[in-house]
Amino acid sequence: MIYFDNSATTKPYKEVLDSYVKVSTDYFGNPSSLHKFGGQVEALLSQARNQMATLLNINSKEIYFTSGGTESNNLAIKGTAMMYKNRGNHIITSAIEHASIRESLESLKMYGFDITYLSVNSEGRIDMEELKRSIRDETILVSIIHVNNEVGTIQPIKEIGKLLKDYPKILFHVDHVQGISKVPLDFHECQIDLCSVSAHKFHGLKGNGVLYLREGVKIAPLFTGGNQEWLVRSGTENVAGIIAMAKALRMSLTKMDSELENILKIKSYLLQELGQEEEILIHTPIENSAPHIINFSIKGFKAEVIVHALEEDDIFVSTTSACSSKVKSVSHTLLGMGITEDVAKSAIRVSLSFENTREEAEKFVQAIRKTIQTLGKVMKNNEI
Amino acid sequence: MIYFDNSATTKPYKEVLDSYVKVSTDYFGNPSSLHKFGGQVEALLSQARNQMATLLNINSKEIYFTSGGTESNNLAIKGTAMMYKNRGNHIITSAIEHASIRESLESLKMYGFDITYLSVNSEGRIDMEELKRSIRDETILVSIIHVNNEVGTIQPIKEIGKLLKDYPKILFHVDHVQGISKVPLDFHECQIDLCSVSAHKFHGLKGNGVLYLREGVKIAPLFTGGNQEWLVRSGTENVAGIIAMAKALRMSLTKMDSELENILKIKSYLLQELGQEEEILIHTPIENSAPHIINFSIKGFKAEVIVHALEEDDIFVSTTSACSSKVKSVSHTLLGMGITEDVAKSAIRVSLSFENTREEAEKFVQAIRKTIQTLGKVMKNNEI
Repeated sequence: MIYFDNSATTKPYKEVLDSYVKVSTDYFGNPSSLHKFGGQVEALLSQARNQMATLLNINSKEIYFTSGGTESNNLAIKGTAMMYKNRGNHIITSAIEHASIRESLESLKMYGFDITYLSVNSEGRIDMEELKRSIRDETILVSIIHVNNEVGTIQPIKEIGKLLKDYPKILFHVDHVQGISKVPLDFHECQIDLCSVSAHKFHGLKGNGVLYLREGVKIAPLFTGGNQEWLVRSGTENVAGIIAMAKALRMSLTKMDSELENILKIKSYLLQELGQEEEILIHTPIENSAPHIINFSIKGFKAEVIVHALEEDDIFVSTTSACSSKVKSVSHTLLGMGITEDVAKSAIRVSLSFENTREEAEKFVQAIRKTIQTLGKVMKNNEI
Repeated sequence: MIYFDNSATTKPYKEVLDSYVKVSTDYFGNPSSLHKFGGQVEALLSQARNQMATLLNINSKEIYFTSGGTESNNLAIKGTAMMYKNRGNHIITSAIEHASIRESLESLKMYGFDITYLSVNSEGRIDMEELKRSIRDETILVSIIHVNNEVGTIQPIKEIGKLLKDYPKILFHVDHVQGISKVPLDFHECQIDLCSVSAHKFHGLKGNGVLYLREGVKIAPLFTGGNQEWLVRSGTENVAGIIAMAKALRMSLTKMDSELENILKIKSYLLQELGQEEEILIHTPIENSAPHIINFSIKGFKAEVIVHALEEDDIFVSTTSACSSKVKSVSHTLLGMGITEDVAKSAIRVSLSFENTREEAEKFVQAIRKTIQTLGKVMKNNEI
């Protein structure tokens, strides 16, 4: 199997699963239990929190465990809005956010919130001047995706953080789900107040994520109850999943150190080979893009047809994001970049992990060429 | 280890963990992915949904997967309130609900909701007449716990469902987290509209739960985004955890068939032996109580002292619910039953699973007797 759909989800590392099983078997207790056994589990939880904090270069008190990226994004957006609704009703975001950000913001409109969607240029980048102009007295939050999940564009997070430093009443949230362990981001240095992360995007287990809240930042909870996670997120902690997530992050960051050059070579090989095909239009920008995502259209072919043709060769790629692939709408990101609806409907996303090899990339290029040829003939024959 | 804290969390069955590892390894794909591999994962998810539905005697379309009991309870309460806030602003519940229900309801007050807390009698049961009297034109929801998590009292769910049938505008939610696989409950027969379940209470894995929504019942989502779970709960499904949950439920229900008599015998042995001690007051009622929970106070001893004394013999019990054990408040449930604050502070909860044995119960009784004697002497000496 050639798995090129790592932005949808990644394969958990074996060591990560081993940790999960070990904790679930030997330390299955509830960390909130008062007895010694609960205390041991709580100590493990605390240790994982410290590990995550060290890896992310933040304080352990700034980590709030959630059930994943969607929860982290919803909690960040809705929790901020509900906490500061008396301060202001305006939120700024970009036109190319993940559905969990976009839909969270849309759901706030019924509570009187006004949302500004910043446009992006043909490379998918927002314009700092437009952001500046969009700020109002009522603005309480700016939420910007770090690495776009469909085309891989990296936003100028550090510059945004610097700009927002002049507006102490505006919180800054970053959706780091696609960026983590691929494109370094220092939360403190970039003046980020809230940041979302999901374990299954870096070989951890589904159902686990983190919301970083800068020390001193307060938000309203979505889940109330047993008051776990300092009242921000009630519910019995998924201790085994959390420990597995800390391990996955450590392993992924180590891999990034050793394999980044390799993945960049694969990416540039793919861009070069695909770029040679006259039917292919590459959407991922050369500059300011993540090492693992390549988005392109094969003119005249619907993306689903290509996805299904490639799976015959045991190659797995995606159309848009997995979360939106079954909705019959066209990619917000590509339309936002000024790509026509027709071309956007042909868009294919290849998303790599550090486990992918040059050999797989070569096989993929061959398969793409074969597919264009075969399907081209079929279409030509159908025309006759 | 004698683990008598199964209402806090249970040990996952080995077979359940095996399934989890198998799915995480071989079917790690995203069920929302369009390709064949995603399709295989989606088929497994759908199969697990059907299994859960069959086991719960409901339709598969009535199952919404969540991250656990706290999420299910929050989604039920807040989702109903937000969906029907224009219909009415009154909700009825009992005085002895789990914190995730109580705190969810309290959080609705700032949106103008009025909450009625039904009192309970000395056995922890609500009064049907009081419920009837509490219903108003503005009532949109009644939420009642099936099996109380601290003392094990079973509420008259079937009668409540029958009563509410005359009020088609009132939805009926049941927190079934402590009842499942211990006290049978037919959701359809009891006219339940929403019902919460958590996997780690029946030897499944933490981070997994179900919210049952009767066909036709609509609620507002807490998480918006990729529109998974028919728009009610966005977020990549924790497929391996869900499949493991279905297996855990099947195994637990099979165990219930074969082991219920045994656990009832252990319970009655414990009640008899503990009842003989003059220092012990038993709070769990004889009638209408679950087979696995026994709550009692040893007069004059703070509960924490007993918990820590027992852990020296490798026996693990709890004070109140795990979720509240570190909060320095006195049990709502016990106070609601008319027990004095002083006695409530001495309350110990023993919660069994089908894995516990008579031999363990005997050792526990010995340890309790030894503890009373030893600590009694210490106290007496300190008095002198």
